[in-house]
Amino acid sequence: MRSFWKVLVVVCVASVLISPCLAQEKVATKPRARDLGVPFDGTPGPLNAITDVAGVTVGHTTLVSGEGKLEVGKGPVRTGVTAVLPRGKDSSDKGVFAGWWSLNGNGEMTGTTWVEESGFLIGPVMITNTHSVGVVRDAVIQWTVARRKVGPDDDWWSLPVVAETWDGWLNDINGFHVKPEHVFHALESAHDGPVEEGAVGGGTGMICNGFKGGIGTASRKLSAKDGGYIIGVLVQCNYGSRQNFRVAGIPVGREIPSEDPSAFAPTDITERGSIIVVVATDAPLLPHQLKRLARRVSLGLGRDGSISGNGSGDIFIAFSTANAGAAAPDHVVDLKMFPNDKLNPVFAATVEATEEAVINAMVAATTMTGIENHRVSALPHEQLRAVLKKYNRLNP
Amino acid sequence: MRSFWKVLVVVCVASVLISPCLAQEKVATKPRARDLGVPFDGTPGPLNAITDVAGVTVGHTTLVSGEGKLEVGKGPVRTGVTAVLPRGKDSSDKGVFAGWWSLNGNGEMTGTTWVEESGFLIGPVMITNTHSVGVVRDAVIQWTVARRKVGPDDDWWSLPVVAETWDGWLNDINGFHVKPEHVFHALESAHDGPVEEGAVGGGTGMICNGFKGGIGTASRKLSAKDGGYIIGVLVQCNYGSRQNFRVAGIPVGREIPSEDPSAFAPTDITERGSIIVVVATDAPLLPHQLKRLARRVSLGLGRDGSISGNGSGDIFIAFSTANAGAAAPDHVVDLKMFPNDKLNPVFAATVEATEEAVINAMVAATTMTGIENHRVSALPHEQLRAVLKKYNRLNP
Amino acid sequence: MRSFWKVLVVVCVASVLISPCLAQEKVATKPRARDLGVPFDGTPGPLNAITDVAGVTVGHTTLVSGEGKLEVGKGPVRTGVTAVLPRGKDSSDKGVFAGWWSLNGNGEMTGTTWVEESGFLIGPVMITNTHSVGVVRDAVIQWTVARRKVGPDDDWWSLPVVAETWDGWLNDINGFHVKPEHVFHALESAHDGPVEEGAVGGGTGMICNGFKGGIGTASRKLSAKDGGYIIGVLVQCNYGSRQNFRVAGIPVGREIPSEDPSAFAPTDITERGSIIVVVATDAPLLPHQLKRLARRVSLGLGRDGSISGNGSGDIFIAFSTANAGAAAPDHVVDLKMFPNDKLNPVFAATVEATEEAVINAMVAATTMTGIENHRVSALPHEQLRAVLKKYNRLNP
Amino acid sequence: MRSFWKVLVVVCVASVLISPCLAQEKVATKPRARDLGVPFDGTPGPLNAITDVAGVTVGHTTLVSGEGKLEVGKGPVRTGVTAVLPRGKDSSDKGVFAGWWSLNGNGEMTGTTWVEESGFLIGPVMITNTHSVGVVRDAVIQWTVARRKVGPDDDWWSLPVVAETWDGWLNDINGFHVKPEHVFHALESAHDGPVEEGAVGGGTGMICNGFKGGIGTASRKLSAKDGGYIIGVLVQCNYGSRQNFRVAGIPVGREIPSEDPSAFAPTDITERGSIIVVVATDAPLLPHQLKRLARRVSLGLGRDGSISGNGSGDIFIAFSTANAGAAAPDHVVDLKMFPNDKLNPVFAATVEATEEAVINAMVAATTMTGIENHRVSALPHEQLRAVLKKYNRLNP
Repeated sequence: MRSFWKVLVVVCVASVLISPCLAQEKVATKPRARDLGVPFDGTPGPLNAITDVAGVTVGHTTLVSGEGKLEVGKGPVRTGVTAVLPRGKDSSDKGVFAGWWSLNGNGEMTGTTWVEESGFLIGPVMITNTHSVGVVRDAVIQWTVARRKVGPDDDWWSLPVVAETWDGWLNDINGFHVKPEHVFHALESAHDGPVEEGAVGGGTGMICNGFKGGIGTASRKLSAKDGGYIIGVLVQCNYGSRQNFRVAGIPVGREIPSEDPSAFAPTDITERGSIIVVVATDAPLLPHQLKRLARRVSLGLGRDGSISGNGSGDIFIAFSTANAGAAAPDHVVDLKMFPNDKLNPVFAATVEATEEAVINAMVAATTMTGIENHRVSALPHEQLRAVLKKYNRLNP
Repeated sequence: MRSFWKVLVVVCVASVLISPCLAQEKVATKPRARDLGVPFDGTPGPLNAITDVAGVTVGHTTLVSGEGKLEVGKGPVRTGVTAVLPRGKDSSDKGVFAGWWSLNGNGEMTGTTWVEESGFLIGPVMITNTHSVGVVRDAVIQWTVARRKVGPDDDWWSLPVVAETWDGWLNDINGFHVKPEHVFHALESAHDGPVEEGAVGGGTGMICNGFKGGIGTASRKLSAKDGGYIIGVLVQCNYGSRQNFRVAGIPVGREIPSEDPSAFAPTDITERGSIIVVVATDAPLLPHQLKRLARRVSLGLGRDGSISGNGSGDIFIAFSTANAGAAAPDHVVDLKMFPNDKLNPVFAATVEATEEAVINAMVAATTMTGIENHRVSALPHEQLRAVLKKYNRLNP
Repeated sequence: MRSFWKVLVVVCVASVLISPCLAQEKVATKPRARDLGVPFDGTPGPLNAITDVAGVTVGHTTLVSGEGKLEVGKGPVRTGVTAVLPRGKDSSDKGVFAGWWSLNGNGEMTGTTWVEESGFLIGPVMITNTHSVGVVRDAVIQWTVARRKVGPDDDWWSLPVVAETWDGWLNDINGFHVKPEHVFHALESAHDGPVEEGAVGGGTGMICNGFKGGIGTASRKLSAKDGGYIIGVLVQCNYGSRQNFRVAGIPVGREIPSEDPSAFAPTDITERGSIIVVVATDAPLLPHQLKRLARRVSLGLGRDGSISGNGSGDIFIAFSTANAGAAAPDHVVDLKMFPNDKLNPVFAATVEATEEAVINAMVAATTMTGIENHRVSALPHEQLRAVLKKYNRLNP
Repeated sequence: MRSFWKVLVVVCVASVLISPCLAQEKVATKPRARDLGVPFDGTPGPLNAITDVAGVTVGHTTLVSGEGKLEVGKGPVRTGVTAVLPRGKDSSDKGVFAGWWSLNGNGEMTGTTWVEESGFLIGPVMITNTHSVGVVRDAVIQWTVARRKVGPDDDWWSLPVVAETWDGWLNDINGFHVKPEHVFHALESAHDGPVEEGAVGGGTGMICNGFKGGIGTASRKLSAKDGGYIIGVLVQCNYGSRQNFRVAGIPVGREIPSEDPSAFAPTDITERGSIIVVVATDAPLLPHQLKRLARRVSLGLGRDGSISGNGSGDIFIAFSTANAGAAAPDHVVDLKMFPNDKLNPVFAATVEATEEAVINAMVAATTMTGIENHRVSALPHEQLRAVLKKYNRLNP
């Protein structure tokens, strides 16, 4: 039996002059990768999502408007913003231990110099398109200032974490359509429970492994013997080529020829794009241990066939929601630390959830036509199942 | 005899609705640190400025308006933007080899992940206040798009390098007064020749070692035997305490008591703020060698007494204007490389120019009053000379 | 048709008092992974070995003696030394550009601090067991001193690169059986042409993915369009678990149950051991580009199922034999640099050759019994083929 | 009044065939830098030594034998080994949190890859000459195996931390005179209380800032308000030039001309050699915070005038003796963490103690003649005082 997943309505924010209307998606049930019979290792959490980690919330603003020829500044628009809040509404006040790592740095994740130095991620992780990182960054500050009521003698400052992948094949990326209010909406609408996947939020205009990409998530729950912790992963995936694409180890990309050779021009490029990965856990890991998790993301991408091409911004951040009091500025704090010698199940979970989150993003994404009628096809579910069956890798 | 330095007029850009008028400074002659008799090691280039490195241009936009009580969004405004263009107007088309390093990462320098990965800095280095990094970043892209005429099938993207220090003691930092046109102005007005120092550009509202800080620069010219290369340094300095401040090794800060204990509230903080340092050279250094230069900046700051406090964003980037053809994307390129075994004079020059650029910034900066009538005094020239004389360290 | 590979005789060095006699292996033909029908991506070089990169030589000293109960200092001995010389006999005089990276640092690779700083690897890369790194390091210096005739006023020093994995399950590792003469032998016997694989050299006592491991190698040759370069990989593999082990994406480890549950005690450990990987290329890459190659190794290991366990020393070094004159100490040198934008085929080759070299090591290794009659089984060739066939992944 | 410091007798270990007799030094009182009137910032601990951090012990083996012409393998010998044990005899069983950093990596510190990955330093920090790192490393393992009684089914391994600087101007470095018993002696003789400084242990044959160098130490005690913690520093200093050498900010090196131009041949080299620095504290710092301390060492060296020359191995490690139970392998542990926002006094202490430890090493070292009658003069105490007095920087 397949389980199903409810896609929430993306609310349309009125923003008459400067932004396209936010896309509306109907409530629907959509299968996820394992519903299609894709085999994965490990045991997922209840939602098989980053929100299985208690406290983590996710919000999207999805911007879709216009069709046809590109008019820079007018559209068509296929972009958005995704917000991951480690402690929900408390994220700006109570930092989480964090570590980050770049497999291939053709990308941006602001704020990482302070994450590296301090060991803390303070505030949300935002993901958007490459040319909107700035507006999102400053808008996060603006949003936080409003909530904190920063006074004139307050020496508060903020170094937000904002990452990106490039959606310029489908989106009017140089039209700068992401505005502060879209950032506020992603932050305000962040919620626990199921996470919208596919062509939503920052992932709206993304392309992955030669098919439509976007946002995907997955999680693993460790056995009680291993501590019972949750490891959740969220990806904005925009990397790879059909040539190298593997599902459950099977070279699926080569078995599904491009149905329309003219459709997706860059098919001859062996590898393009980027992937941002956020890893969350409730295991009490210190910053240097979280960096170890961030590095494991590359092993999950290896399973999916990535070669991390030169143009790829493959940047990963991991945080722990444990040790809620760690960020107290004025006194020695008490902490818990998970022992290094017991980390293998956590590492395995990170690899497995990354492997699955990418496939979930691709399974959820639907075919999209953007600027200049550029069209990117979704990964066809039935063909995926047929290929896995051919290789005796389809779960019943 | 003292030499003097002409301060260029900062042109006022009309920007009626959203920004304060740009500050006007009269043409004047201002002494620099060595004019006051401060002893430094090494031989400066003709301008004793980063612009001694051929091709490098620097532009400032200085925003000063309003007085008195803080009204967030209205002012008072004491901030700006500084642009350093490694190859002048060609900077966006022809990357330079670069390396970066963070001594203490409580700060932002966007774009560094790609600098680290690719070995290239493409486009300018921008410096502004902490909460305006985003607007500056996206505006650099906007400016570049306009100049490049990016087409709809062009998969061009940009990851600008933008750094910051925090000016919220004097400036309405949460009013977000830096706008795209200020970024364009800094870029368009960048020029070779003498560099404006002190409370200008990104350095407008900065505080350094308990006195007024800002932008400073210095350079060294190697002997012909050592290759005759130039090493230039530009700092936006906003770090330190009077307690630790040293000039030419002398603890000058302790010898000049604060004239008005109520004037600069955070004097009891042993160390605050940040410093961004840009190192330029025409020596043919590879990216990993430039990273070595970036690390030497810390030794220059050590000479000036820094302890690199927890709140400091001490982030440095070094680039080489040699190897002009290195960034060609489509063929194997010919390069020159300076041998590691001959680097000591380059390292010494970096240390010495850093040491001097900080003092130049402080000597050039003038007393400023900002929000809430917060006032920061300039380093008093005659008292500086008197202290150096007391310690037999005043050059004749 | 399968091609075959000649195993060279490992010469026995007489060393009466302090070392076990070196193991003798008969000339034989042994299949490699692709001879068994394992499918891999990409086109290998003529030897499918790191020695396809012109100039690279490899030497092994294999130490096998004694049986049964462990007497520390007497044996049984199952260990050795492997030497990879980037420029053969010229390796100590003419450095190569290099970069290194650690996926999980529970291991040692000496000399890396200088590789990172200088961009050069000078001398060989040595691989041995964990507790013999020191003797190998100093012996490399001793060997070099003898060849260089260092004089009393010569300020020459050396920082050799020596890596390790742990063979204490089979070998009397705390008996310190590796001696300087074994290091000299590995260096002196290094040769081009086919590379001995399996339980030889530093890889003698290693365990990989729950089967016998050791030394493996593979290479890729780029198309003329991509520059025609060679990328060669050599691994000393000692990592992983049957549970996670994948061949060509198929979970082979789970399909081959342990034939003797008492044979290999640590089967319940999900992941153990380490892997050292050396990547060689003749493409003219700079140090920072070679570091990018080193990072890609993790993607190849990801394809083989690795989770990089906490106890794993997964440390990789990459070098380029191009730019032969780069290490000149006293003048500006001319270099060639391969453009970043053309690196994707080089990255893919690194991933593919890593993936294959691990399987080659396991296919070549034969069942071994060591201390305390600990026994580790070889990967059974016919069972491997049967599993691949079951999943329609066996090449004809 | 000057306080004095007792130099302990270095016991001579009989080692008839392979090693020179260990040097004997008589009990004597020797002034330290602040006894001579050198001004430093901050408040030292009771011993002004790394051993002010409770639990830390230090042992030296000093090897001095022979005179005159170099016969490689015979001598003259001017070298040794220094051991710093973070938790005394418990150091191998109970790791300490640690972080390391390299200002300039022309040197070796083994074991750092695991320090970086795990956050722990397990066992001692050893310092010796460049070409004896290997023997020291393996001897540490041998010593630990003997104490632990590692069994045949024990999967224990060790990755010792061993650092070096080069003493080949005075010592027969390619004679490999350091033997395992010298390592055992340094470890066994390690003690708390005063630390022998100058030409002892690993520092025996070192040269620093154009004078005789060696081992030096210093400490700072924070005020009760700042937590009352101790920060201790130990250096093996072998770096720098007279040209750049500063004491308390005064360019002392230039004011003391070389008394015998032929005495120290490499005076024309602007910068040579290396410095290893060990920072210890009882403040409860996490690994990433300790790395921050390691980086501050460079600011102390900057105060002393260092430019960190190309040939310098400037490698620093910092550890905390707090959190004694942190290294437990099998369960979640309770920790304390000092807040980032309170670190400034700790940073200042690290800078100040580093600045002083270097001068202490030079003040303690005595003139030495080594191979080929190479002679290196001690820093002349009275001339040092005279120069400081000239600049009004001599403490009464």
